[in-house]
Amino acid sequence: MTQPLMPLWTEDSKILILDQTRLPQERIVVQVETPEQMHHAIRTLMVRGAPAIGNAAAFGMYLGAKCGSFQDHQKLIALLEKTGVYLSTARPTAVNLFWAIRHMEEFAHGLPQDTSPAVMLKALFQEAQAVLERDIETCKAIGRQGAPLLMRCNGILTHCNAGALATGAYGTALAPIYTLLEEGIRPKIYSDETRPLLQGSRLTAYELLAAGADVTTICDDMAAWVMAQGKVQAVIVGADRIAANGDTANKIGTYGLGVLAAYHGIPLYIAAPFTTVDFQCPDGNAIPIEERDPQEVREFCGTPSAPQDVPVYNPAFDITPHQLIAAIITENGVAYPPFSESLPRLAGENTR
Amino acid sequence: MTQPLMPLWTEDSKILILDQTRLPQERIVVQVETPEQMHHAIRTLMVRGAPAIGNAAAFGMYLGAKCGSFQDHQKLIALLEKTGVYLSTARPTAVNLFWAIRHMEEFAHGLPQDTSPAVMLKALFQEAQAVLERDIETCKAIGRQGAPLLMRCNGILTHCNAGALATGAYGTALAPIYTLLEEGIRPKIYSDETRPLLQGSRLTAYELLAAGADVTTICDDMAAWVMAQGKVQAVIVGADRIAANGDTANKIGTYGLGVLAAYHGIPLYIAAPFTTVDFQCPDGNAIPIEERDPQEVREFCGTPSAPQDVPVYNPAFDITPHQLIAAIITENGVAYPPFSESLPRLAGENTR
Repeated sequence: MTQPLMPLWTEDSKILILDQTRLPQERIVVQVETPEQMHHAIRTLMVRGAPAIGNAAAFGMYLGAKCGSFQDHQKLIALLEKTGVYLSTARPTAVNLFWAIRHMEEFAHGLPQDTSPAVMLKALFQEAQAVLERDIETCKAIGRQGAPLLMRCNGILTHCNAGALATGAYGTALAPIYTLLEEGIRPKIYSDETRPLLQGSRLTAYELLAAGADVTTICDDMAAWVMAQGKVQAVIVGADRIAANGDTANKIGTYGLGVLAAYHGIPLYIAAPFTTVDFQCPDGNAIPIEERDPQEVREFCGTPSAPQDVPVYNPAFDITPHQLIAAIITENGVAYPPFSESLPRLAGENTR
Repeated sequence: MTQPLMPLWTEDSKILILDQTRLPQERIVVQVETPEQMHHAIRTLMVRGAPAIGNAAAFGMYLGAKCGSFQDHQKLIALLEKTGVYLSTARPTAVNLFWAIRHMEEFAHGLPQDTSPAVMLKALFQEAQAVLERDIETCKAIGRQGAPLLMRCNGILTHCNAGALATGAYGTALAPIYTLLEEGIRPKIYSDETRPLLQGSRLTAYELLAAGADVTTICDDMAAWVMAQGKVQAVIVGADRIAANGDTANKIGTYGLGVLAAYHGIPLYIAAPFTTVDFQCPDGNAIPIEERDPQEVREFCGTPSAPQDVPVYNPAFDITPHQLIAAIITENGVAYPPFSESLPRLAGENTR
């Protein structure tokens, strides 16, 4: 297969981003040279997906140091703090954004105080690259863990984009599919378009096509009929947050797929970095559901698709109860029910 | 409440059509004066929905006589045959189109042979109006039959457009909702947008808003979550064809709603004219499923939403097995399981 896409990569010291707002129509690569440009890229969804946002923020912190002025370690710390406060306003609810900002600050704290500015700057760049590479390794590990579960499927259904474009590369839900492709196994992938923001048809279809996968796009209301006809033997999706009991918050529509999969005797797999498991959160009831701008449902790319005054309900996520989940695939291993017992066992294996 | 919209109506001898291709953005009324204009209106979906197409075709036959030239009964019959052949090419798979053409031909055959051309023309116009009025009466009767089933629902979910805009007025699935509104009962209506052609957000939301209903538009992948939160106590949809055992072909997505409704203990109601029941068709397996142009899924209101080369699966309909259907609401009465027994009992009540 062709290598999975990367939403952000470096060439020498250049930081490059694939502008996802232009996909799938145009493949525009943007060089990011300032923290302001990285803030803009994150805010406008040129780069999106929790892990990918974290990677972008790590490089954003490096750019804050590069474009600012610092003569010593103390000034660098102050500069990074300022940059962190600024970057954190780009997507205020993105947990990975804050994680990456804090991580780069802590890394800078740990640098020897007598290091030269040039060496400190180089170390920051290398650490941002390490953040990206560790994320890619996490995704690859999720792929290795999940591939055996999908190996005998002729067809697999996925929802939204938990793919290469949402991470360093490979993705989470799509990682096992990339692993199969590398092994020469080419199942048929059905990709829900995923209204309202169409990440499935815009991004998942795009990246799977680019990797030479056998992908078919369907509308969200066709998934049940695809299952009824025996076209898929598994459903695999990502996760935004997994409670201690396995209840999973993910893109709106996931819960419905869980119910439909159970009815058809098809397993629903959740694939996510182990950091997605929130042991402080006992169950799905404790996860707040973000409601988004009604205009997303009333239009697409500025084209009205409904009366502009119609009331809209637009939850961004739903909660799939653990009873509907066959397994949770992480880089540390695969958790099976009961998840309240299997997830803590995998915690000891945490590699990130 | 405000009167439900009509997709086609007459003012004196003028035949007027609401151009549904321009909804919900613009309310354009078009006067149709020739059979060519009616052919164009049907072909381009300015008027759509099985019963509404039948009504349009009946007036199209009248226009064929009006715009042609005939001196006697025999010439009229020949003219109508020619018009019928021509109109039937507008939507070659629309059963109601053929029904209306045949009906108007048979009506003309029954006219006394010595009637003057002017009187024959007037009779044809009146018969087309009678076709429209009988359709409206059928819809109103469906509304009266179905309203008691929905009377105690705080929320009702519907899919696609089986409303006033698809019929003479009132609709089929929406008829009981209009009946409730007339009685001063105003439940919350959740309307699936219904990809790929968005009849739910473009048409159902539009006509329910126009009638003063409390309608909320959702994306198709939000329906399960709406059910999980207890927001709806019934699902009601139309039907394209109902088999003798109750298996129902309807807009893609209906089957999934049936599975989801059963999981949540919510009844799924089918509402349709009794003529939709095909006793020659033993079960859903005998109903062919039309696959439509992939481009419908690759675009959203004309804007590309997926890679233009991605394979697409685009079934227009699905089959909901009778086990998932709580009741079938017709103008003759409400059929409950087992439908293979209850549907024939209602046949004797057929009023159309």
